[in-house]
Amino acid sequence: MTLQFLIEQIKQKKSYLCVGLDTSIEKIPKHLQSNPAAVFEFNKQIIDATKDLCVAYKINTAFYESNGIKGWEAMEKTVNYIPSTHFRIADAKRGDIGNTSSQYAKAFFDVLNFDAITVAPYMGFDSVQPFLEYENKFTIVLGLTSNKGSEDFQQLKTGDNFLYETVLKKVSGWGTKENLMFVVGATKATELESIRKIIPGNFLLIPGVGAQGGSLEDVSKYGMNKDCGLLVNASRAIIYAGTGENFAEEARIIAQQYQTEMMNYL
Amino acid sequence: MTLQFLIEQIKQKKSYLCVGLDTSIEKIPKHLQSNPAAVFEFNKQIIDATKDLCVAYKINTAFYESNGIKGWEAMEKTVNYIPSTHFRIADAKRGDIGNTSSQYAKAFFDVLNFDAITVAPYMGFDSVQPFLEYENKFTIVLGLTSNKGSEDFQQLKTGDNFLYETVLKKVSGWGTKENLMFVVGATKATELESIRKIIPGNFLLIPGVGAQGGSLEDVSKYGMNKDCGLLVNASRAIIYAGTGENFAEEARIIAQQYQTEMMNYL
Repeated sequence: MTLQFLIEQIKQKKSYLCVGLDTSIEKIPKHLQSNPAAVFEFNKQIIDATKDLCVAYKINTAFYESNGIKGWEAMEKTVNYIPSTHFRIADAKRGDIGNTSSQYAKAFFDVLNFDAITVAPYMGFDSVQPFLEYENKFTIVLGLTSNKGSEDFQQLKTGDNFLYETVLKKVSGWGTKENLMFVVGATKATELESIRKIIPGNFLLIPGVGAQGGSLEDVSKYGMNKDCGLLVNASRAIIYAGTGENFAEEARIIAQQYQTEMMNYL
Repeated sequence: MTLQFLIEQIKQKKSYLCVGLDTSIEKIPKHLQSNPAAVFEFNKQIIDATKDLCVAYKINTAFYESNGIKGWEAMEKTVNYIPSTHFRIADAKRGDIGNTSSQYAKAFFDVLNFDAITVAPYMGFDSVQPFLEYENKFTIVLGLTSNKGSEDFQQLKTGDNFLYETVLKKVSGWGTKENLMFVVGATKATELESIRKIIPGNFLLIPGVGAQGGSLEDVSKYGMNKDCGLLVNASRAIIYAGTGENFAEEARIIAQQYQTEMMNYL
């Protein structure tokens, strides 16, 4: 997907919502659990019920890997089911030496047809670069994450800057807004103003709204740029909104609330 | 596997060699490539030919994920084929917020029967902790990696210490030598002396010997502790030593050279 297409989708739908498919077999409604393809069936109904309200889906690979081969199959079926109008993110947090990152890029961009993958920056340039080589694919590098543990290293000072600021500065030089985005947690909304000074143009993938407690209003106020520049993700708050047979309708109600709020901020 | 068992294996075999199964379908001998289970067949023969010379096998997950479901199957079959006397490492470089890291821990420690997994530290305590909860399983956190990109962030100063030193100091307080190891690249052998002052007791997984050019002698001289404390990995140098039908015998010859050299250092 090109950046231009994504921006057009955001304008058309008046939404920058990303629905996170962190689908856990234990948490899906009981009536689906006996289905041999329960996870895919759940995702399918969530996608059908929310696709006109969101512009992206994010598949958290951990929740699929924890079901082994069956989980990998559910991931493959899910990514293929997501309409090509939607930005498909593998939330995989990969990153390794060059020849290994090339294999991860192949796995998620070629074998599985994702548009984007999240990547951890710790190993530096040659761990990120193989992902950036793909045209019309996006590398989403971790900047400042939404969890408590972001204090341990990301918020240490490296010279005059916090480590996450140094990461944003340095990594933003390795790509363009056409192939590079960053993860910035919604629970750090006030930092978004200074982050936007470092990376004014790149899209930000913002987790942490919903179950983790971040504010959509603050994120939008401090993070938006002229292209919108935001993909705000909610996972558990949407997909587990209901627990019965009408779970997809209840998910839709929450997604609709996000979209309505987003329409006001755009 | 317990740490004690691993140490006994090292003493018995006079080896601290880890064989890295970075098995790429394009690089395995031609006569195997038409086999529908080519990657597993290759790994099986490598394991049979080297198991008396090494104490660990390291499976680089990227090389399996890049083959999709078939690759995941080959990984599962391979880890189940590795004898339980050998330390089974998933070189996966995972790490995410707590509830997601829990899923990765389940994937590699419960569903796939690995003894250890490599983990990236960028997201801090709650991204590492779920792995540490498993008894007789090991979390191997990235300290200083063997690639050029380690200069980008790992070797930045955070106060008086390099970031990788801060990582080693802080993370070593989250576990014990019974559940926590660190990755330190062999191409940084001279730093091992100062690293050993920070983490005298933990085992180190040392990649970068062989194809990446690190010296086994230097690594052993500066990195060894009273338990040995080292697992030195070679991947490409061993598994791709030969390209013909006798590839496993040629792999054995190289593994034997490492083991003979290690015997002298122990």
